[in-house]
Amino acid sequence: MTDEIDPALLEAPSALQTHLGYQLTRWSTDFARVELPLTPQLMNRQGLPHGGMHATLLDTAMGFCGCYTGDPGRSQMALTLSLTVNYLGQAKGAVLIAEARRTGGGKSTFFAEATVLDDRDTLIATGTGVFRYRRGG
Amino acid sequence: MTDEIDPALLEAPSALQTHLGYQLTRWSTDFARVELPLTPQLMNRQGLPHGGMHATLLDTAMGFCGCYTGDPGRSQMALTLSLTVNYLGQAKGAVLIAEARRTGGGKSTFFAEATVLDDRDTLIATGTGVFRYRRGG
Amino acid sequence: MTDEIDPALLEAPSALQTHLGYQLTRWSTDFARVELPLTPQLMNRQGLPHGGMHATLLDTAMGFCGCYTGDPGRSQMALTLSLTVNYLGQAKGAVLIAEARRTGGGKSTFFAEATVLDDRDTLIATGTGVFRYRRGG
Amino acid sequence: MTDEIDPALLEAPSALQTHLGYQLTRWSTDFARVELPLTPQLMNRQGLPHGGMHATLLDTAMGFCGCYTGDPGRSQMALTLSLTVNYLGQAKGAVLIAEARRTGGGKSTFFAEATVLDDRDTLIATGTGVFRYRRGG
Repeated sequence: MTDEIDPALLEAPSALQTHLGYQLTRWSTDFARVELPLTPQLMNRQGLPHGGMHATLLDTAMGFCGCYTGDPGRSQMALTLSLTVNYLGQAKGAVLIAEARRTGGGKSTFFAEATVLDDRDTLIATGTGVFRYRRGG
Repeated sequence: MTDEIDPALLEAPSALQTHLGYQLTRWSTDFARVELPLTPQLMNRQGLPHGGMHATLLDTAMGFCGCYTGDPGRSQMALTLSLTVNYLGQAKGAVLIAEARRTGGGKSTFFAEATVLDDRDTLIATGTGVFRYRRGG
Repeated sequence: MTDEIDPALLEAPSALQTHLGYQLTRWSTDFARVELPLTPQLMNRQGLPHGGMHATLLDTAMGFCGCYTGDPGRSQMALTLSLTVNYLGQAKGAVLIAEARRTGGGKSTFFAEATVLDDRDTLIATGTGVFRYRRGG
Repeated sequence: MTDEIDPALLEAPSALQTHLGYQLTRWSTDFARVELPLTPQLMNRQGLPHGGMHATLLDTAMGFCGCYTGDPGRSQMALTLSLTVNYLGQAKGAVLIAEARRTGGGKSTFFAEATVLDDRDTLIATGTGVFRYRRGG
């Protein structure tokens, strides 16, 4: 499958990734998927997943989707310029799944859109973002 | 001072709050401040504070700023409808400080704006959001 | 076709609609399309369609998409709470075409997403929005 | 006053500016003000100023605020990457007044925030945006 991740492309997980427990589960040209099991430590004062988690997943998935190179020797990084999240519903399931797609841009910036569903296929949140590529990869 | 927090108003920290380490340090009518020490576990794959952390702080501070009641017996909750974050710069300091201000709205929804500075007063991010009050407080 | 407009549902054009020259060309449950011929009067100081026009189309199409009733005797109105527009490219064609889809919400608010393409199928802009229904329809 | 406009800096009004009737009334380093009299032709199907007009003013004012050069022989242009508008209230007055302030950025992009008030000082809308400078601009 085109969007399975070549193990050689997988970096060591970032510190926050380990701390929150999310994983990059698909990555291909212009596409990325990130999944986060809803552990108790991610809940807000109302006992619901904190909205910052949706934002974290959307930012992560969108950032990755524009940075796929397919070449283990050449990694591409990006900085977020702007991120918008709309919160459509509450998760009933046990996992949040963010899927992001690069929608446009060029060599210096890119645009992406993404969704967060739970593992019952309920649409929880949507996001859009603008990102800037870091020079020197 | 009007924006110091009456200890009687402080709830037990939420699970995520404890997990990430942020604190509500000011809370008054239409205003809230939240601070997050930049511990290593909050870093992204580039070794920078993950953009999801700025979003988490902005969402938290803006949510609180519209929910101050001044009455320990009456807590007000809100759900985020929409959140936009702009990423202006990189933190050089050791703490991220989000300050939020309610800018409008009524009984069912409210609007807020917020900034994230580091402890050297550098502007790191700005945010705006729309929130819906939960009924029954 | 399900998304052609029943002439009985078409209201008189609004004042701005006449002034700018856009038209609602499709309208069905959770969907709307609005088209704007790119006349010279819509250009900015750089001779390009002003970004406010994309925002106007996205706001219009998204507002309509959540307000379809199918009943000429019952019109539904909405107010925009929040609108985000990303500008992906420049129009080469002669018409801007916005298509909007309701993505979620309930009785008091709704969410929508939309695209602006030109008549050569180039993606020019994307938008998301949160809207509040007006009571009394 | 630092923010009055040197007549030598004023360009011919753009086509859309003439068509809608707005004017740049203040312009200085990192700041711009744009005003729009609320003529009947700007109204939506509810008889209210169309939300696209607020977006147009915010986009215009924010674009200008990052492009002030103070040098009639050197004009700077920018493209909007992302624009977010929050709609806080309805205008009661006769004029919409947008004020924008550059909040950050560098040589290739800039960030801005802006408000729309009416001439009775009611806060009608807020906006934030990310812009890219045009080269050779």
